Amino acid sequence: MPDDAAPNPTAAVLIIGNEVLSGRTQDANLRFLATRLGEIGIPVREARVIPDVAAVIVATVNELRARFDHLFTTGGIGPTHDDITSECIAAAFGVPWEPHEVAWAKMAASYRPGEFNAARQRMATMPRGATLIETTLTVAPGFSIGNVHVMAGVPRVMQAQFESLAPRLAGGRPIVSRAVHAAGVPEGRIAEGLAAIQARYAALDIGSYPYYRESGNGVAIVAKGTDAALADQAIAEVTALMAALGGAPVAGEPPA
Amino acid sequence: MPDDAAPNPTAAVLIIGNEVLSGRTQDANLRFLATRLGEIGIPVREARVIPDVAAVIVATVNELRARFDHLFTTGGIGPTHDDITSECIAAAFGVPWEPHEVAWAKMAASYRPGEFNAARQRMATMPRGATLIETTLTVAPGFSIGNVHVMAGVPRVMQAQFESLAPRLAGGRPIVSRAVHAAGVPEGRIAEGLAAIQARYAALDIGSYPYYRESGNGVAIVAKGTDAALADQAIAEVTALMAALGGAPVAGEPPA
Repeated sequence: MPDDAAPNPTAAVLIIGNEVLSGRTQDANLRFLATRLGEIGIPVREARVIPDVAAVIVATVNELRARFDHLFTTGGIGPTHDDITSECIAAAFGVPWEPHEVAWAKMAASYRPGEFNAARQRMATMPRGATLIETTLTVAPGFSIGNVHVMAGVPRVMQAQFESLAPRLAGGRPIVSRAVHAAGVPEGRIAEGLAAIQARYAALDIGSYPYYRESGNGVAIVAKGTDAALADQAIAEVTALMAALGGAPVAGEPPA
Repeated sequence: MPDDAAPNPTAAVLIIGNEVLSGRTQDANLRFLATRLGEIGIPVREARVIPDVAAVIVATVNELRARFDHLFTTGGIGPTHDDITSECIAAAFGVPWEPHEVAWAKMAASYRPGEFNAARQRMATMPRGATLIETTLTVAPGFSIGNVHVMAGVPRVMQAQFESLAPRLAGGRPIVSRAVHAAGVPEGRIAEGLAAIQARYAALDIGSYPYYRESGNGVAIVAKGTDAALADQAIAEVTALMAALGGAPVAGEPPA
């Protein structure tokens, strides 16, 4: 059980890939990682998207691994010329980038003779000291080194790698979320009372999110923290506030 | 980057909001901004997602506005307690945060007597020297100060603000994109030939993106740069490479 008094460990997410920065690809990895890491009590405090440029990757990895308890990277571990994450992680740690004995043997065995070529061998080449993150989806693994966890960019592969890795992460108290929403309560009218509630619940993050639906517009108020009873209590106060302002509050998030 | 003309201006995107870092909200603003900024020749080189924490916002704004020609922020300019972007921008620039005469007058006129309350007045309070980014969608404007452009987090409002702002931005040569895809050509087989093509087209960014569809898996190769003829030429070489590897290349991106 996590120590109730200790602060939760923190995480950063680093999305590596020109395709996200150019608008070609809609990132889907941050939301997955943020949700799952919140559930295991390692909240994400920052995310970055950077290009496939070695100097940028090395500098960013070194900055983020120093500032956060965990760094999760996605992208750039395939076989092509633009997949340079693995060697950049080695450079960031100042260790050799070399064949990983286990990964190499498994990958060599999975290809037909002659097909475990130089490009594929790069996927079995890792920073010295890396621990594999293996899945049944692909023979090419991710890996952890120190507090840095290196995963694929393809969402279904990344998700499988994360679930393989998760049991090895020492989590904290889960981040819980409580919400209430109401149509016809403008943010500008609820703001003052909401600020007063936030001030009384300093242990929670209370957020206000307007929504726009064909069925009507409104605002959702979300309280997040590690104390579910406290979040329930704060949302009860918000619910009363909404009702006092003439709204008809409904528990939970608005329907998608 | 082509060396026959001035380099394109660069951009960073800063997404401000606990809701994206917690996984509650799927960001949709980066992809829009990356695409539109590429079209007007101001490619996005980095994106960050940070929480609603004043010290983090101030430090990040100051770092990114120094490193890139433009910084576009989304989120945190509404009326509630967690909307602190505007005052943080003022702090980052070291200027007063004060009523903006034009914004204040327009907002005051748009509410019924007594409804332009303290929370809403915050949306008309801006760093001294701010230039408004106005739209017909909402009376609460975004603003520019120096090379920092401050927009809403709600996608349709942000998009309208960007289109209002865009004519004022001095763009560069548009980033064009050419693509070809083929089923049944594993990345591990095309990698070597693709690296050789990339080496001959240093002015282009050539990316390799595997795709997984019910209709079949394959790989898409995308060439991006400011020279459309060069991108066409590189993709023609990739197309020939795919065919030589036994694939049946199809122009363009794979269907969604």
